[in-house]
Amino acid sequence: MTETPAALTRYHETVQAEMRAALPAVSLPIYDMARYALGWLDETGRPASASGKGARAALTMLGAEAISDQPSVLERAAAGAAAVELVHNFSLVHDDVQDGDVERRGRPTVWTIWGVAQAINTGDLMRELADAALRRALLRGASAEAVLEAVRRLNQATMLMIEGQYMDLTFEQRLDVEVDEYLAMVERKTGAMMGVSLSIGATLAGASVEQADALDRAGRRLGRCFQMRDDWLGIWANPDALGKPTDADIRRRKKSFPILYALSHAPAEARRELTDIYRRELEDEGADLPEAQVDWVHHLLGEVGADAATNRAAREEYEAFRSELDTCRPRPQAVADLEALALFTLERDR
Amino acid sequence: MTETPAALTRYHETVQAEMRAALPAVSLPIYDMARYALGWLDETGRPASASGKGARAALTMLGAEAISDQPSVLERAAAGAAAVELVHNFSLVHDDVQDGDVERRGRPTVWTIWGVAQAINTGDLMRELADAALRRALLRGASAEAVLEAVRRLNQATMLMIEGQYMDLTFEQRLDVEVDEYLAMVERKTGAMMGVSLSIGATLAGASVEQADALDRAGRRLGRCFQMRDDWLGIWANPDALGKPTDADIRRRKKSFPILYALSHAPAEARRELTDIYRRELEDEGADLPEAQVDWVHHLLGEVGADAATNRAAREEYEAFRSELDTCRPRPQAVADLEALALFTLERDR
Repeated sequence: MTETPAALTRYHETVQAEMRAALPAVSLPIYDMARYALGWLDETGRPASASGKGARAALTMLGAEAISDQPSVLERAAAGAAAVELVHNFSLVHDDVQDGDVERRGRPTVWTIWGVAQAINTGDLMRELADAALRRALLRGASAEAVLEAVRRLNQATMLMIEGQYMDLTFEQRLDVEVDEYLAMVERKTGAMMGVSLSIGATLAGASVEQADALDRAGRRLGRCFQMRDDWLGIWANPDALGKPTDADIRRRKKSFPILYALSHAPAEARRELTDIYRRELEDEGADLPEAQVDWVHHLLGEVGADAATNRAAREEYEAFRSELDTCRPRPQAVADLEALALFTLERDR
Repeated sequence: MTETPAALTRYHETVQAEMRAALPAVSLPIYDMARYALGWLDETGRPASASGKGARAALTMLGAEAISDQPSVLERAAAGAAAVELVHNFSLVHDDVQDGDVERRGRPTVWTIWGVAQAINTGDLMRELADAALRRALLRGASAEAVLEAVRRLNQATMLMIEGQYMDLTFEQRLDVEVDEYLAMVERKTGAMMGVSLSIGATLAGASVEQADALDRAGRRLGRCFQMRDDWLGIWANPDALGKPTDADIRRRKKSFPILYALSHAPAEARRELTDIYRRELEDEGADLPEAQVDWVHHLLGEVGADAATNRAAREEYEAFRSELDTCRPRPQAVADLEALALFTLERDR
């Protein structure tokens, strides 16, 4: 079992405190819905502890550390970290509505408790809170230019993330998605926010546009690496570590990388049969795949080498991350942490 | 019939062009969904002409004119006008999902064509496009400080607007909404965006924070005036001018100002009966009120003087608008246009 890298937890409390400070003292229940979505309250308004891992926050802090180790700079970066976490969580609230998902981090999703209309509102509000959080960097001495540049980067990345979500939803209705299209979607939906995490931290730490752009590209690669590993785990994970059965993504008929790989590499007849399975999904609206067919798909993935291909794709993204990282000439102290975090992304078993 | 004020159309084309320029040249259909929502395309992607009136854009330009008549300043303000129109239209796309409305400006709403999930996405995207539009003020020589202040104002107003939408949705489930709560909701849902329209234009034209704040307060009053008139028209409008029957809001059982006024001013027995009508609505989920009861409610509103009270409330907001406007010491040339626009808001018959 791969150990959680220290960088993932080092700034967790700092960033959580920064996020809490960004929420205004308005006594309107929608702010408590946002606090629920962030894992700070349960659905009755009592304190809870169910936040996400904060991977994006860690990236933001490391992006800043890549440029500077001044404490004042890291304080500014915490404002950026709070902002990216808020945007990420806004997207989860809307995604759960869009996908009809009833559970997130082991708890009921916002829309199942307060309805679709208020879940849309809660997500909308969290997006606005992100900008409010980011402006707190001004209180720690960041210049208007730096904050405006950070706002711009967050805005552009959020737009890409929404493009990715658009693409992902359309892919569900299609049977002819190519591996390259899938990666372009992943780069937007997952990569853009990891890219801006790194680049916004660096920007608030005084990076040049070139340095921030290099970190942005590095983060997009890391996002692709993250998703490739996620796709691998969705089929070949050890169930005990993950807490969900192997083949979960086959059972849910999720068109993840291994399936798309098989659709373009399997012999003609197997390809037809696989396409048929996914066509039937469009017809019977998300019912689980029968176990006999799960086994058949699992076997087919093994035959075409989708397991190794997915791992290979993840490792390629990891290598690309490292080489983009080099081009920004990061401080050596930060490189070790960033590489440990990327290696964890590549090798995690849950 | 009240004539449309010149200020409402003077900058329409300029701002529409500015909005078009803010959309990136990305060939992803979600951008065409946004163009549909903005009235530029029909649902098959052919050019259309179905934009809104652009009241907020006009306010932004007049807010700038209140401070300066330099052409370069007005060019910057057009970027702000495009931004507020984009935020306004984002909110309409999400509102239509939340309210289940199937028609907007005489066309099918986004969610009825592309589904709820993509309508959420389209609205999210339009919110991001607003910030991109606003940053175009930098191209016309606005300082980073001014643009960041404009971004801040738009962010704060959008947050208030979302609070207002939250309140409005909760009011639908309640029978004890007070007139003051209703006005607080209207000030957020409608007023905040009118306030920021004026103040963002002024900010980009070089206004002081005090001037911009005064215009913001003026705009919130105008928003309340607008809604009071809207509520009046929803019951007492001349059907020929409005294209929908008088009593429309009674028939839909909308808890608008006149109804809330009657609920707190009618004799006890009538109040109980009225409450009962709205309780039944919660039970039978939005069915129209039978005509005999529509007539009874209409008659009751007349008896308690809800007609005059609604007009009075609208006029009070108009007067408050004028006095807030004075405190920002606007250029006299702009005052005439702003007052004409406010008077039109107060007296329009559709």
